[in-house]
Amino acid sequence: MAFYFRTLPIAAAVALATAPFSAQANETSIEARLAELERQLEATRAELAAQNTSAPVEDTETRISALERRASGQEGLSLSGYARSGLLLSDEGKSISGGPYVTPAGPLGGAVGRLGNEPDTYVNAMFNLRRQHDNGANSLFRVAIADSVSTSNDWTSEESQLNVRQVYVELDNLPSFTGAFEDASIWAGKRIDRDTFDIHWLDTDVVFLAGTGAGIYDMNFSDNWRSNFALYGRSFSDFPVGERDDPGTGSTDSLTLSSNNYVGNWQFMVNAISAADNDDRLIENGDTAANSGAHGMVAYHGDSFFGLSEGNFKVALLHGQGLGAEVKRIGANGDLLDDAQATRLALYGTTYLSPNWRLAPSLLAEVSDDRFAEGDNYRWATVNARLANEITSNFEMQYELSYQFMDLDPAGYKGRNAVSGNFGKATIAPTFKPNVGGFWQRPEIRLFASYTDWDKELNNYDSGDAFGSEGFTGGQWSFGVQAETWF
Amino acid sequence: MAFYFRTLPIAAAVALATAPFSAQANETSIEARLAELERQLEATRAELAAQNTSAPVEDTETRISALERRASGQEGLSLSGYARSGLLLSDEGKSISGGPYVTPAGPLGGAVGRLGNEPDTYVNAMFNLRRQHDNGANSLFRVAIADSVSTSNDWTSEESQLNVRQVYVELDNLPSFTGAFEDASIWAGKRIDRDTFDIHWLDTDVVFLAGTGAGIYDMNFSDNWRSNFALYGRSFSDFPVGERDDPGTGSTDSLTLSSNNYVGNWQFMVNAISAADNDDRLIENGDTAANSGAHGMVAYHGDSFFGLSEGNFKVALLHGQGLGAEVKRIGANGDLLDDAQATRLALYGTTYLSPNWRLAPSLLAEVSDDRFAEGDNYRWATVNARLANEITSNFEMQYELSYQFMDLDPAGYKGRNAVSGNFGKATIAPTFKPNVGGFWQRPEIRLFASYTDWDKELNNYDSGDAFGSEGFTGGQWSFGVQAETWF
Amino acid sequence: MAFYFRTLPIAAAVALATAPFSAQANETSIEARLAELERQLEATRAELAAQNTSAPVEDTETRISALERRASGQEGLSLSGYARSGLLLSDEGKSISGGPYVTPAGPLGGAVGRLGNEPDTYVNAMFNLRRQHDNGANSLFRVAIADSVSTSNDWTSEESQLNVRQVYVELDNLPSFTGAFEDASIWAGKRIDRDTFDIHWLDTDVVFLAGTGAGIYDMNFSDNWRSNFALYGRSFSDFPVGERDDPGTGSTDSLTLSSNNYVGNWQFMVNAISAADNDDRLIENGDTAANSGAHGMVAYHGDSFFGLSEGNFKVALLHGQGLGAEVKRIGANGDLLDDAQATRLALYGTTYLSPNWRLAPSLLAEVSDDRFAEGDNYRWATVNARLANEITSNFEMQYELSYQFMDLDPAGYKGRNAVSGNFGKATIAPTFKPNVGGFWQRPEIRLFASYTDWDKELNNYDSGDAFGSEGFTGGQWSFGVQAETWF
Repeated sequence: MAFYFRTLPIAAAVALATAPFSAQANETSIEARLAELERQLEATRAELAAQNTSAPVEDTETRISALERRASGQEGLSLSGYARSGLLLSDEGKSISGGPYVTPAGPLGGAVGRLGNEPDTYVNAMFNLRRQHDNGANSLFRVAIADSVSTSNDWTSEESQLNVRQVYVELDNLPSFTGAFEDASIWAGKRIDRDTFDIHWLDTDVVFLAGTGAGIYDMNFSDNWRSNFALYGRSFSDFPVGERDDPGTGSTDSLTLSSNNYVGNWQFMVNAISAADNDDRLIENGDTAANSGAHGMVAYHGDSFFGLSEGNFKVALLHGQGLGAEVKRIGANGDLLDDAQATRLALYGTTYLSPNWRLAPSLLAEVSDDRFAEGDNYRWATVNARLANEITSNFEMQYELSYQFMDLDPAGYKGRNAVSGNFGKATIAPTFKPNVGGFWQRPEIRLFASYTDWDKELNNYDSGDAFGSEGFTGGQWSFGVQAETWF
Repeated sequence: MAFYFRTLPIAAAVALATAPFSAQANETSIEARLAELERQLEATRAELAAQNTSAPVEDTETRISALERRASGQEGLSLSGYARSGLLLSDEGKSISGGPYVTPAGPLGGAVGRLGNEPDTYVNAMFNLRRQHDNGANSLFRVAIADSVSTSNDWTSEESQLNVRQVYVELDNLPSFTGAFEDASIWAGKRIDRDTFDIHWLDTDVVFLAGTGAGIYDMNFSDNWRSNFALYGRSFSDFPVGERDDPGTGSTDSLTLSSNNYVGNWQFMVNAISAADNDDRLIENGDTAANSGAHGMVAYHGDSFFGLSEGNFKVALLHGQGLGAEVKRIGANGDLLDDAQATRLALYGTTYLSPNWRLAPSLLAEVSDDRFAEGDNYRWATVNARLANEITSNFEMQYELSYQFMDLDPAGYKGRNAVSGNFGKATIAPTFKPNVGGFWQRPEIRLFASYTDWDKELNNYDSGDAFGSEGFTGGQWSFGVQAETWF
Repeated sequence: MAFYFRTLPIAAAVALATAPFSAQANETSIEARLAELERQLEATRAELAAQNTSAPVEDTETRISALERRASGQEGLSLSGYARSGLLLSDEGKSISGGPYVTPAGPLGGAVGRLGNEPDTYVNAMFNLRRQHDNGANSLFRVAIADSVSTSNDWTSEESQLNVRQVYVELDNLPSFTGAFEDASIWAGKRIDRDTFDIHWLDTDVVFLAGTGAGIYDMNFSDNWRSNFALYGRSFSDFPVGERDDPGTGSTDSLTLSSNNYVGNWQFMVNAISAADNDDRLIENGDTAANSGAHGMVAYHGDSFFGLSEGNFKVALLHGQGLGAEVKRIGANGDLLDDAQATRLALYGTTYLSPNWRLAPSLLAEVSDDRFAEGDNYRWATVNARLANEITSNFEMQYELSYQFMDLDPAGYKGRNAVSGNFGKATIAPTFKPNVGGFWQRPEIRLFASYTDWDKELNNYDSGDAFGSEGFTGGQWSFGVQAETWF
């Protein structure tokens, strides 16, 4: 069709080329041609005007743009989240213990590398409804459902952990918010804070703030100073000290007042935690839990690989006291003592070593004292590196090395024994993905093999944990397949 | 191509710009100009025709309209529902009892004002799939998931109440439905009836009809008479008499045959309830439960504020006997006696007092006898008013006053004591919203403070309820934050 | 701007209208007309060029196509799945036992006709996110939630079986996959296999493969040979031998290596099952469970009604040994003995008998030995036919006849008794649907009445099953309503 129209001018050119050879160019023929031209021009203009009317270009543009806004998730319903699912098997073909928090330091937050080390099917699916109101204000409603099971079966109603993890409303671009509040957004409900961040390769948040409450983001007190405030409530209960899953019966409430401040690449966060009457709770060995706590973090979000090459890096130093001594999951652990103190360093970076090799090293280390029993003392540090070799458009080889040192003296808490030792893990993972190229490209479909070993002394720490359980005493091979995606 | 067209006028302009300055307007130059005009006109017409052909306006319109139909939720997937989430705290910073059904009259349906009085995170998310079939018939599939927890934590798998609340199919515009059935829609499955309605400020349905069954809506037996029929099944079990949460094991079934009729602004509803062998169930004090019941409601849906000003109002009078004596949740309470009788009045209105002040008063009152024990006698009445002062485009002050009188003689049922007394609550709630203006604008983000007091005698009603529990004996201050939305 | 262009032709029209009435067509008027024509033509061309620029036709087409791709579910979020919900009542108006697996042969997989025989609300809702990447590769993320309850209530948190049934990633059209892999797709996670198929009218999969693992579909080893490979893990636990609901604690793992091969209309499937240490599990009567199993299926997917008329048919012969002796749910039953053997025949077809009558007959039969106890012996066969008479565009009458023979000798397993006998069911179901015409048109809204009878001997098989329970000893009438849909 395009060809047809493009050939038309050629026919016209032929007609015109013959015209000059007509014998007489008298006034009559000129008059006729002029009249014909005038007639045609009027018809053309009428047609053009009609087209302008019946195909209102601006209207079509507006309507398509509105639909695209919707399709992109800026308006209406969208789904976002994270999921992983796979098998983690021993060399006997049976399931094997695993997970980044598998070591004795795990319940303290001491994660090791996650690659080839995850036994669960985990999904966090967030349904978002965005709407732009007539006055320009935007509202977001989010409800998130999440589940985590370790069975391999398809029907898992008995093991199901399915729960509603977030339900909140957030408003921004409010016309009556001006000055320092012009770019601010406000929210209330149950949520995970927007400004948490993690070391992906250790499956650990650097700081994790979540619960039910309200807050305000992005107040600009000066050109270079952006600030957030929030109040989060949480519920304590007699839960084991764990990394996730801290259900509460609502009988005791903890409140965290949080302020996050950004100045250039720096982030300054301070948190005050209060849990009235938490000292009424009986802690096993006669100690009593803290009623309050304080927590602070200084972080730097770098836009290069430690100034050495292109990439990024983040480094954070966290310190907490009392209920703040759980430095990652702020305000989430009610078993902490008044004297509890913890200091943690978290660090990671990403860079390309060559066009086809990516490197992401990370470090996580913590010292803490008087945490759950007077006189306890926990020290651990993890060093991890994930390396990837991009081979084709759809395939890369991933490698991960993980090392953890731990020196844990629980002072008799929960019948645990003092231990000291090292843990190491090496993983190789042939990985398929739709389009390689970068640290954050997902989904990935992986095969993997890991070798994991640790000092035998660590098996004595806790008779209830994985280390030292049957068939899991060190020197383990594990194998598996896994899908991981965010969306 | 676009480049080609855009360059043409330049060439033409050059030709035209030079033409007038030719010394003589002789035939030759006229001939040249005419030829050029003819050539250009033909090219223009060809271009115009090409544009008309390759951009079929009607087709584009059809396709964009189809996409807009989808975007608006008239076709395809959409999400609708309701959610609230927030903190309800005592002046000690701990969670405090609350909820519109917190008083002794609550389990009977005696709600008080909900503003600043809700301790839970509740969400009802309905996923809708709509489809228009080739013959013009429409089908709707709806699945709703809902949850309600009072913990403030983000991960709530242990407290989760997450459940599938609705699964049904509804069909309308069926070509073979004619005459009185022309506008009718039919449905089957598990659902909440379409034509329930509520007093929003008391969090109470005026009538709530739900369960698993089938029905037909909108039969037109005459110009002014619209009618619905439905059969709903429900399951009884040994559940406490409560306002929500009446899980059943499926061991006994209750059937409700329901007819709803609309004549002008009037609604007439009649319900017949049957639960075979329900009298086999042992009720605590030797009484036996009813096997059947009857229920009726007359309602008026007004399109002004009681004829006084612009706005709306609704008033309903309900009466039930036997299993119909739970007049709100029709057929949902299997503990009612054969002699049980209940009569309820429900009323509310909305109006603007001035351009910036909104008022929504409501009244709910019930008398009932021989309900759960022969000789019992329950009387209660709630008066509530929510007032809002719209201050900016994004902010309003809300106020709520709530008063409840109750005179409850349970005749020893469940060890409860006869009490009589009053309850009062006053709440102030600074409220942010994307765009103020009207009673039904959501989302809202609220801060609130409430003062609640009641006659001490009410603390003796039930040793298991909130009234009289530790730290909750009257004269309470409570504070909180909350998001509420529907979507 | 549109206004500006639309007014221009009026000025032109005025100019043109006056021009022809000039007394003399001398050079001056010709000059004026030529100049006016040249001016207008330039304006017209400019306008046309402007329109071309602001309404790029190809771009509009591209954008609308992208939006339509999204609307059709080929890109972005979509919802698919299956649901049914309704009431199944006895002639006393109470719930009655039912379901296709209600007979003693049911736990062995011996389904009977489902029409008018389903007491549950079941929903399987799959949320799909599809994305086409820049290099042409496609990715699918799917998360499915499912529930099944038999209560009729709307709020079912206590009975809820809600669980996440699938979480997986699938990739196809990968640029680096060539040769035999060009059309292949790869996947990992928790899923139900793509290539399962069922006899819809018996609610039975012919083969059901599900669990957590990874695999590859659609390798083409030759022109006529298409092949799949997969590894699926499952978890065993002390679950009753049932048709669904086989939750596992993850303590023992079963692995199934599966290969599916298509040659023309033929399908050849082989499966090898391994469950290390499964023989450590104590089976009731001293027997021990198998550690491994083998399973094979030959199926023919016919594109006519057994060569007799238009329609389709499928026939499959399955055989399994050891852990493969559960021939339908491959690798899902850990109670099978080493000597267990089972052979099953499955067959169904669909055809139109006349323009308004549809017929779908099916047959399912199995013999098995040494299944759960040495010496046990189970034989059963079901014949079923569903007949539909399409009456209007929105209404059809459906009829179903179902017969099952069973001869079951459990050799004392779980205290069950050897029985032999017959079961029969006849159902009539007036059915409403948006648009009749075909076997797979849904949704359907049905009313139904069934008469069910069986040999009294069957009541003695298992004291815990429905047969022989109070009010369910044979010769039952049942009634109900139901919605069924897939989407």
